[in-house]
Amino acid sequence: MDVRKIVLIVCDGMSDRAVKSLGGRTPLEYAETPNLDKLAEIGCTGVLDILNPGVPPGSDSAHLALFGYDPERYYPGRGAIEALGANIPVSEGSLACRFNLSTVAEKNISGGVSLIVKDRRAGRVSSEEAEKLIKSLQIELNNFNNVKVKVIPNVEHRGILVVEGDGLSGDITDSDPHEVESCVNRCEPLSNAHDFKAAEYTAEIINEIVKTSYRILKNHEINKLRVEKGLPAANIILPRGAGIVRRVEPFTKVWGLKAACIAKLALYRGVARYIGMDVYDVPEATGTVNTNVEAKFRKAVELLKEYDFVFVHIKGADSASHDKKPLEKVKMIERIDSAFKIIMENVVYEGDAVVAVTSDHSTSSELGIHIGDPPALAVYAPDIVSDNVKHFNERAVLNGGLGRVKAVDLMRILLNYACRSLEYGLKPSRESRIYRSTECSPLVI
Amino acid sequence: MDVRKIVLIVCDGMSDRAVKSLGGRTPLEYAETPNLDKLAEIGCTGVLDILNPGVPPGSDSAHLALFGYDPERYYPGRGAIEALGANIPVSEGSLACRFNLSTVAEKNISGGVSLIVKDRRAGRVSSEEAEKLIKSLQIELNNFNNVKVKVIPNVEHRGILVVEGDGLSGDITDSDPHEVESCVNRCEPLSNAHDFKAAEYTAEIINEIVKTSYRILKNHEINKLRVEKGLPAANIILPRGAGIVRRVEPFTKVWGLKAACIAKLALYRGVARYIGMDVYDVPEATGTVNTNVEAKFRKAVELLKEYDFVFVHIKGADSASHDKKPLEKVKMIERIDSAFKIIMENVVYEGDAVVAVTSDHSTSSELGIHIGDPPALAVYAPDIVSDNVKHFNERAVLNGGLGRVKAVDLMRILLNYACRSLEYGLKPSRESRIYRSTECSPLVI
Repeated sequence: MDVRKIVLIVCDGMSDRAVKSLGGRTPLEYAETPNLDKLAEIGCTGVLDILNPGVPPGSDSAHLALFGYDPERYYPGRGAIEALGANIPVSEGSLACRFNLSTVAEKNISGGVSLIVKDRRAGRVSSEEAEKLIKSLQIELNNFNNVKVKVIPNVEHRGILVVEGDGLSGDITDSDPHEVESCVNRCEPLSNAHDFKAAEYTAEIINEIVKTSYRILKNHEINKLRVEKGLPAANIILPRGAGIVRRVEPFTKVWGLKAACIAKLALYRGVARYIGMDVYDVPEATGTVNTNVEAKFRKAVELLKEYDFVFVHIKGADSASHDKKPLEKVKMIERIDSAFKIIMENVVYEGDAVVAVTSDHSTSSELGIHIGDPPALAVYAPDIVSDNVKHFNERAVLNGGLGRVKAVDLMRILLNYACRSLEYGLKPSRESRIYRSTECSPLVI
Repeated sequence: MDVRKIVLIVCDGMSDRAVKSLGGRTPLEYAETPNLDKLAEIGCTGVLDILNPGVPPGSDSAHLALFGYDPERYYPGRGAIEALGANIPVSEGSLACRFNLSTVAEKNISGGVSLIVKDRRAGRVSSEEAEKLIKSLQIELNNFNNVKVKVIPNVEHRGILVVEGDGLSGDITDSDPHEVESCVNRCEPLSNAHDFKAAEYTAEIINEIVKTSYRILKNHEINKLRVEKGLPAANIILPRGAGIVRRVEPFTKVWGLKAACIAKLALYRGVARYIGMDVYDVPEATGTVNTNVEAKFRKAVELLKEYDFVFVHIKGADSASHDKKPLEKVKMIERIDSAFKIIMENVVYEGDAVVAVTSDHSTSSELGIHIGDPPALAVYAPDIVSDNVKHFNERAVLNGGLGRVKAVDLMRILLNYACRSLEYGLKPSRESRIYRSTECSPLVI
């Protein structure tokens, strides 16, 4: 018996709810998707609870779950993932946050002066200006006691804050209120923090950093020039998404699969790096969205020669949902479906592989937010018992044969169809969770 | 984006099994329920495992699960719930039991004299007599060392026993054998008690209280008079359902919802009080069951203006099941359905709310007991992806799109459809699990 290779295609935010302007259909129902429908017809379908039922996932925690890493245990916080995605080295045990350079104004309140957020992105300050501002801030932050503080510019208003030291905790609230005209929040320990003392200590450090940033940036030359030009001053940094970087067992070791990730955006590349996948990008041939999807699928077919597991991330459907544009979402889905012919022809019909298509979460194109509805899932394997579902959409798969399963179980389900699962209770000759381990540890006589 | 309000309607014991006298149909299948069927048609359906699959819930643990409090962690015991329901103040850490005033007779056994239960309710002794008997007992129980013992009459033969002191445990067996002609049991620690020593200590206290009650009550004036009249003497108290009262995080804080409970019976009001809901009753207009259900639904519509979450408890179907009267159950279900028109017209069709209907457990109207079959569930939201189920009954919802979900996940599912969930991994700027927190904790510079 030969083991099979696995292709996992995640169409970000593709699943949705009933959309009024589409006559109560979902974008996936409304779209013409002959190739995905074919996969559903010859495969088996269901819905996938990415986290606990009803909980809207972030894309980072969702992908961890899809790769079989329970976010409750392994989610290191968005900051850590973004740092990894931006190729910023962060040592284990360090705190990492994302931050924005933002614009705030002072407001007197009882007890002192608070800061009101006027522009969360400081008018999308240029990368060049941001780099200089952050450099000045770094010099001041070098004076911190006990901990080493690093502020690293990313693109435009975005940056990564890293705090290195002992006794830090990621269980703290955001300074960023996420809304303009709200006040900059005191960073505080979460009441359910694993280590409340550590969280209190960390929150105080963050508050000091935020106050320092305002003190240094408000009178900075660059901001004076910006204000003269009528632009909002980038006069504070607002951290969010704190997390402690932890090492996890790599994907290859956990599942016994040599794995490749095809993704463009930093977040997804960050998750893949976190679990030790090889990360690939595909330069867009013509720059159109359509070509990009086709190129990704072609790359997947190519990488499948070398890898056991190829993960393809496709973004478009989620972006259209956040923009509240259901019809654009429909078009993006049709583009994905059209490109998916490449997988059907080169993998499904030709080879002996397992192919799964799903979303990392549902995104409502009416509400513009991630929702907790379980996304549609279709799995194909040459010998899978297919159900009666003939269409790949949220409503059709409600009658799917896979039922309602948890994302954290998906890898085991795929490994099973790939004939790579080790029978429960059987001890491998070498420790490995795959069916046939090629590793060898010879007894020396 | 606006958040939605939530109505949760729990029809106690409505779900059932196939009933022979109804031609193998369930009461819910047999009944004419056009309004509930409509909800199933435009909503999404499934079945709800209240506890672990197959475990028959009590109504108290079931409601805790429905409100998102895992009973394994938060169930304080029936006694505590009943005390809260009867508005009897019980301090945290105290032991609370229900008890009956019962009739026992002595029986010689090897090693001494045991007590045989002759009437578990002492001929439903009047509230007046019970109050006097319990008062006499209280005077004697004031002499206990180390702990403070309170016996509080409830209605007729019913009462609440409260023990205040240190080192108590609720992990003890019932003195009440629950059957006549059985002997009054020695209260004993459960073998799987969290703290076996504490359970042993508590059990000894309960045994002393029971013995004291027999000593005081057997010769009481009131009982002498009762025996003269040929009535059974209320000559002992038999505790059951011990539990330690613990404080839990209130519902409003856990789910970010201002919540109201509409329920008549003490048990349900007790659960609601335990988790800090505002509790309402509806005086019956004419006293008929029908009017009562309509009045409850009307009250729900009214409270929905002020509250984010309104829970309505409707009892009738469970009582008919315990009485083993399937046809009466059918009639009760039809009454509920008819009254449910009020919710359809005023909430489902008019507003922008989430409506869920289910049972706290299934009750067999042939067997007369709670069963572990997962009850039917229907959920409606304006943009929900409906399944193909067009009827609300146990058989139809087996093909439901929600599949088989756990009661403890229901609140998250409802919050999701109410657009109130916080995306996983997002740190709230202020601690709150709802999507939009208006709270602010300004950083002072």
